[in-house]
Amino acid sequence: MVNEPDRPTDIAVDAMPPAIILVEPQLADNIGATARAMLNCGLLDLRLINPRDGWPNPDAVAMASGATAVLDRVRVFDDLPGAVADLHRVYATTARHRDMLKHELTPRAAAVEIHRQAATGARSGILFGRERIGLMNDEVSRCEAAIVAPLNPHHTSLNLAQAVLLIAWEWRAAIDETPERVFVQPDTRPATRAELSNFLRRFHDSLEANGFFRTEALRPSMWRKVESLILRAEPTELDVRLLHGVVAALEGRKRPPSRADD
Amino acid sequence: MVNEPDRPTDIAVDAMPPAIILVEPQLADNIGATARAMLNCGLLDLRLINPRDGWPNPDAVAMASGATAVLDRVRVFDDLPGAVADLHRVYATTARHRDMLKHELTPRAAAVEIHRQAATGARSGILFGRERIGLMNDEVSRCEAAIVAPLNPHHTSLNLAQAVLLIAWEWRAAIDETPERVFVQPDTRPATRAELSNFLRRFHDSLEANGFFRTEALRPSMWRKVESLILRAEPTELDVRLLHGVVAALEGRKRPPSRADD
Repeated sequence: MVNEPDRPTDIAVDAMPPAIILVEPQLADNIGATARAMLNCGLLDLRLINPRDGWPNPDAVAMASGATAVLDRVRVFDDLPGAVADLHRVYATTARHRDMLKHELTPRAAAVEIHRQAATGARSGILFGRERIGLMNDEVSRCEAAIVAPLNPHHTSLNLAQAVLLIAWEWRAAIDETPERVFVQPDTRPATRAELSNFLRRFHDSLEANGFFRTEALRPSMWRKVESLILRAEPTELDVRLLHGVVAALEGRKRPPSRADD
Repeated sequence: MVNEPDRPTDIAVDAMPPAIILVEPQLADNIGATARAMLNCGLLDLRLINPRDGWPNPDAVAMASGATAVLDRVRVFDDLPGAVADLHRVYATTARHRDMLKHELTPRAAAVEIHRQAATGARSGILFGRERIGLMNDEVSRCEAAIVAPLNPHHTSLNLAQAVLLIAWEWRAAIDETPERVFVQPDTRPATRAELSNFLRRFHDSLEANGFFRTEALRPSMWRKVESLILRAEPTELDVRLLHGVVAALEGRKRPPSRADD
């Protein structure tokens, strides 16, 4: 991939990100928030069909929070066929089941399908309906499939820009390769087993010398619990040095009173 | 589960949904939008630490779009320890890697972990920072782990309520059992193979009688393509009747001109 200094997303054009199509959006705020959510997920192609308050609209810019890479590319269309003419597949998003013959996909399954289609050269568009009433039945019926997010059945209606985020996020997450979990260790590294053993031996001996293990019989199980607690924290090399310092400090603090007590 | 008529979500209390904790939120709009996103995903426990414009706030009600089940339960706290005192695990959300020793999870991995913790009786809370500057380092360091959404690296900053939706959605999706894909067939059923064969035979004969297969050699491959197209559409019983009608209509329309032509 060519390194473009002003590249607004990390998604390659040949990944064929889907177009987001807002059908008769009413609030410019939502268009701006949509642009922001799209750019968060690496999508750039926003199309508007008859936005109620016209376009461009300064209210959208405020809510877009710097997502000018999306706003500057917005295209406005008069009707649905015009808005989707260059696309190969069109999905309708809907909050409820429609009484019509239709494939219904979860957002996660739709994301996978959109990527599979892209791999065969087919570009997708995703329709989002009006804030109050969503998409008309004849708009849904013109789509290959509907995407229905399985939300709280007592409260399925998402804000328009939230709905776009949900779909855009699933699209992005489907190709994301970030490790599920990382342990960030700036300026240090995991402790070696030798470093750990060295500390644990010193810790054990210090506890023993200070009467922590009440009886010899209790010693093995009590020590296993202490050792397990330390190891569960996955100490780094820095942590081990810190722990040596902690033990030294406590030993130092303990000695004077114990001398006085004796 | 007891059937409660006013139950605002479909999530059982014993699923221990996480608490959402907004740290010093600035805009009441975002608190309202957060409440809506939470209820969309079945979460009810919203906690605010020092909301800038006080609480309750009428601006939040407007944006909550009916999510009073969340707004009515909001609790306000003076500090972080108070807000998380009854919880067992606390996650920080952050848009960027912090230069501190910390486990970092994707939202998807965090959702799985929160459910696993809940299964052992441990309830989680998720911290969301201020709109402009997020969480302070000392707030992040008090959490067991950080959740970092792998977004477009050129534009990682999510709107506050969008960030809540993303996490709440992943939490919900992790336990959702909706089939990935369903073919909704209201008032009908899939066609039987006998119904399909019957139609296909009639269609084939009609095409043959009307000279569609230009040569006998071409007939098998042309017919395979037509048959495949019909089957790919997965016709229902109603569709098969519709197709019979389509063929009958075209045969009827074709006959008069062909009679005139002959």
